[in-house]
Amino acid sequence: MTTTPGRQAPHRTDEGTLEVDVVVLGTGSGGKMVAQELARAGRSVAVVEATRVGGDCPYVACVPAKSLLLSARAGLPWTAAAAVRDEASQQRDDTAATEGLVEDGIHVLRGFGRLAGRGRVVVGDTEVRAPVVVVATGSAPVRPPVDGLDGAPTWTSVDALSSAELPARLVVLGAGAVGCELAEAYSGLGSEVVLVQRSGHLLSGEPAWVGEQLAESLRRKGVDVRTGASAKAVVRTGDEFALALDDGSDLPFDRLLLATGRAPNLPPGLDEVTVDARCRVLADGEPVPGLFAVGDVTGVSKYTHSANHQARTVVAEVLGHGRDADYSGVPRVVYTDPAVFCVGDTARTEGVLRASFDVGEVARAHLVEGVAGARGKRTGGRVELVADTATGVLVGAACLGPEADSWGAELALAVRARLDVDVLAHHVRAFPTWSEAIYPALRDLLDARA
Amino acid sequence: MTTTPGRQAPHRTDEGTLEVDVVVLGTGSGGKMVAQELARAGRSVAVVEATRVGGDCPYVACVPAKSLLLSARAGLPWTAAAAVRDEASQQRDDTAATEGLVEDGIHVLRGFGRLAGRGRVVVGDTEVRAPVVVVATGSAPVRPPVDGLDGAPTWTSVDALSSAELPARLVVLGAGAVGCELAEAYSGLGSEVVLVQRSGHLLSGEPAWVGEQLAESLRRKGVDVRTGASAKAVVRTGDEFALALDDGSDLPFDRLLLATGRAPNLPPGLDEVTVDARCRVLADGEPVPGLFAVGDVTGVSKYTHSANHQARTVVAEVLGHGRDADYSGVPRVVYTDPAVFCVGDTARTEGVLRASFDVGEVARAHLVEGVAGARGKRTGGRVELVADTATGVLVGAACLGPEADSWGAELALAVRARLDVDVLAHHVRAFPTWSEAIYPALRDLLDARA
Repeated sequence: MTTTPGRQAPHRTDEGTLEVDVVVLGTGSGGKMVAQELARAGRSVAVVEATRVGGDCPYVACVPAKSLLLSARAGLPWTAAAAVRDEASQQRDDTAATEGLVEDGIHVLRGFGRLAGRGRVVVGDTEVRAPVVVVATGSAPVRPPVDGLDGAPTWTSVDALSSAELPARLVVLGAGAVGCELAEAYSGLGSEVVLVQRSGHLLSGEPAWVGEQLAESLRRKGVDVRTGASAKAVVRTGDEFALALDDGSDLPFDRLLLATGRAPNLPPGLDEVTVDARCRVLADGEPVPGLFAVGDVTGVSKYTHSANHQARTVVAEVLGHGRDADYSGVPRVVYTDPAVFCVGDTARTEGVLRASFDVGEVARAHLVEGVAGARGKRTGGRVELVADTATGVLVGAACLGPEADSWGAELALAVRARLDVDVLAHHVRAFPTWSEAIYPALRDLLDARA
Repeated sequence: MTTTPGRQAPHRTDEGTLEVDVVVLGTGSGGKMVAQELARAGRSVAVVEATRVGGDCPYVACVPAKSLLLSARAGLPWTAAAAVRDEASQQRDDTAATEGLVEDGIHVLRGFGRLAGRGRVVVGDTEVRAPVVVVATGSAPVRPPVDGLDGAPTWTSVDALSSAELPARLVVLGAGAVGCELAEAYSGLGSEVVLVQRSGHLLSGEPAWVGEQLAESLRRKGVDVRTGASAKAVVRTGDEFALALDDGSDLPFDRLLLATGRAPNLPPGLDEVTVDARCRVLADGEPVPGLFAVGDVTGVSKYTHSANHQARTVVAEVLGHGRDADYSGVPRVVYTDPAVFCVGDTARTEGVLRASFDVGEVARAHLVEGVAGARGKRTGGRVELVADTATGVLVGAACLGPEADSWGAELALAVRARLDVDVLAHHVRAFPTWSEAIYPALRDLLDARA
C-alpha cells in the first residue's frame, strides 16, 4: 500500500490515520470522476484501489472490446489486432491514470477498502476518516452454474480482452452486449465461434427483432448462433472439452467464454447497495448520511456512461447543488456492425404506440449498398419507436443499423427531453443520412394517434 | 407532351383543357412529394416536368455525388465508380419515377409550364386549371462572370455527376458543399484537383474553423486548396486552358468545374418567388390565393430535405391542417470525410455563448486511430455549440468529424426543439461514441453561464 500526498493538505492525525473530505472506494470511470472533480473543486480526496486505477473499462472491458471489433472490421490479422488492443488498453498499466490522480492532489491508497462504520474506511493498516464516502467498487463476471466448469479452459471477458491467444474454437456462453461483441470480434479475427443464448433471442432485454436481426448479421459473418439453448455441462474427453447443451448437441471448444452477466463487488462492511436518485446509499429506505455509491455496484445501469452520470450526480450533491440522476435517456449500445442502439422503455406493451421502419429503405442504404454491392455487404436494419399513447411522448427506441451508435443519439435525447412525437415528426432530417429512417416511423405513430 | 389518366377522374372540359384540384410545376423532391401525398389523399393532381421526373437530386445531384464520395473512400477505380454512380442514379432514366406518379393517378405533363393567371398553367397546347398551383421548378447552376469561359472545357455539377470522363486536371471554382464534395471525390478517384475559393475559407457561410479544418483534410487527401483567391480569366494557349487567379497564378486544367452557386428557375409568368411560413407565394407582401412554392425556387434553404419539409407544409395547408414550416433545425451537411454537419445560427455573435471541443480527444477517436494508425489516418474534428445567453437555449451547432452526418443529428433536434443547454448537459451520451465530444462543450457553456 502506498499513499501520495495531496495538495489539499489533509490532516494526518497519527500513524495510520488519514482525515480527508472524501474517500472513494474504487477508481473505475465513476469513482475516478468523483475523485477528480471534487479534488478540482478544492476538496481533499483519497481513493482506494485494489486492482488498477481506472477500473476495468480502459484496460480489460469497453476499450479493448471496441478495439478488437474495429480491428476485425478493418481485416487486421490477430497479432496486429492484439497489439493494437494492448496499445489502446495502455498495456493494462495504470501508471498514467495513477499519475493523473496524483496530479490532482488525490491520495491513492492501494488495497481493499473496508467500511468500518460511518465515515470510516480501513485499508490495510490505514484508517481513512471522511465525512463523505463513495462506494464505486464495480462488478465482476458471474460464473454460471454449469457442471464441469472447473478444470475446463474458460475465459471471463477480462481474459478474452487481454489474452495473447486466438482460440481456434471459441464457445461464447451468454449473448448480452459483451457476448455478442466478442463473438463478432473473435469470429472476424479468425476463431470458429459458437454463441449460445438461453433465451429465445440475443440481447434478451431488447425487442425480439433486435436480437434476431443481430443473430442474422452474426451468422452472415460466420458465427454459429444457438438461441433457446441452455448449457448443461462441460464434458471432457481426454484433452478435448465440449459444452453439452440441453438440446443434446455438443460444442467442442478450445476456450469457453463465460459472458452470463456481472454481479456487484460489495466492499466488506456493506451487504447490499441500493441508491436513491441522488446516489445516496439507502438503509431501510433512508439515505445513510455521507454514504454514496456510483457505477456497476449500484446495479442501476451497468455502463461507463451511467457511472459517469452518477458521478456527476454525487459531485453536484456534495458541492451543494444536488439534482436527481435521470436514466431515461441512457443509451444501451452494442458496437457490432450493424450496431445496436436502444434507449428507454423498449419493452413496454401497455399504453404505448409502436412503429418501425426498415433502415435498408433509406437513400443512404442504397448508396452504401451500391458501392459495397460486389462484396455482398448488407446494410439492413430497423428503427422502432415507442410512444406513450396518452401523452404522445417518445418513451423508447430500438435501432439496429450502420452507424446506429451515432444516429441513435438523437432518439436518446428525445426520450430524455420527453419530446412529443409531433415535434419529432416536424423536425427535418438530412438527406441522405441514416437518420431519415426515423421519419416514416414517426409518421406512422402520428397516423396511429390521429 | 404526354398525359396519363388519373384515378381521381379529373374533368377534361374540352380538347386541350384539364381541370384538376392541384397542379405542380416541377417534380423534384418537393414537387413530387406534394403531388403524391395530395393524390393519395384523394385530390386529382397534374404535374408538369420539363426535364426528368424526380428532379436533379436522384440523377445528377445529391445521389451521384454521395455515390462518388463513397466509391472514392472505398478505393474503387474510376470506371467502377462511374458505373456504381450511374446505377445509383438509375442511369439518369426517369421511367420508374414517372411510373410511380402514374400509379398514384397523377397526370404527368411533359414540357415547360407557364403561369397564365390565377389557377391557370399552360403547357404547350394544354391548359391546366386548378385551384391550387404549386411552383417547384428548382434551381440551376449560376455561370460566374469570368472572362474567357466561353469555349473553355467547363463543367457544371450536372456534368461532373454524369460524365464518363475522369479529367486528369480538374479545377473546381467555388467551395460550397458541392465544390468541396466534388473536389474530394475526384481527387480520391484520381484527378489532380485544385479547389479555388474567393472568400477566406471553404464553406463561407459556416464558422471559419470549419472551412479551415476541411481544407486541411482535403489537402491531406492531395487537393490543392486556394482560398482568398478570385478567378480573373480563363486563358487559352493552343489547346491548353488555364484559370488565371488574381494572385497572379495560373491553374492549367482539362476541366473547370463551375460550382459558384445556383439561382432559382422561375417559370414564365412569375418574376420572383417569395414565400411565407406556409409556403404561400407572396405578392406585395400578401399571399396569392392558391399559389404555393416549395424547394430551391423559394431560395429559403437549398436542400432536398428542406424541399421535403416545405412539401409537407403545403400538403398540410391544402388538407386543412396547416402549420408553419420550421427551418430552425435544418441540417447543412457536407458528406466529405470527415463530414460537416451544421445547424442553426452558427454565425451569430451577439448575445450568444460559444464553446467547442476537439473530437479527436474522445475515446472513440483514440480507438479508431489505434486501428488506422499505420495508415496515418487522422480522426480529428471539432464540435462548436452556440447558445442564446439570455435563454440558455441552443441556437446553433457546427460539427466536423467522422460520422458527423450521423451524430450531429442530436444537435439539430436540440436546436429545433429549443432545448436548454442544461437539459443537454444532463443527458447521458454513450461511451465510446463520437457524441461524447458534445459533452465538454456543453459543460463549458454551463460554466460560462454560471
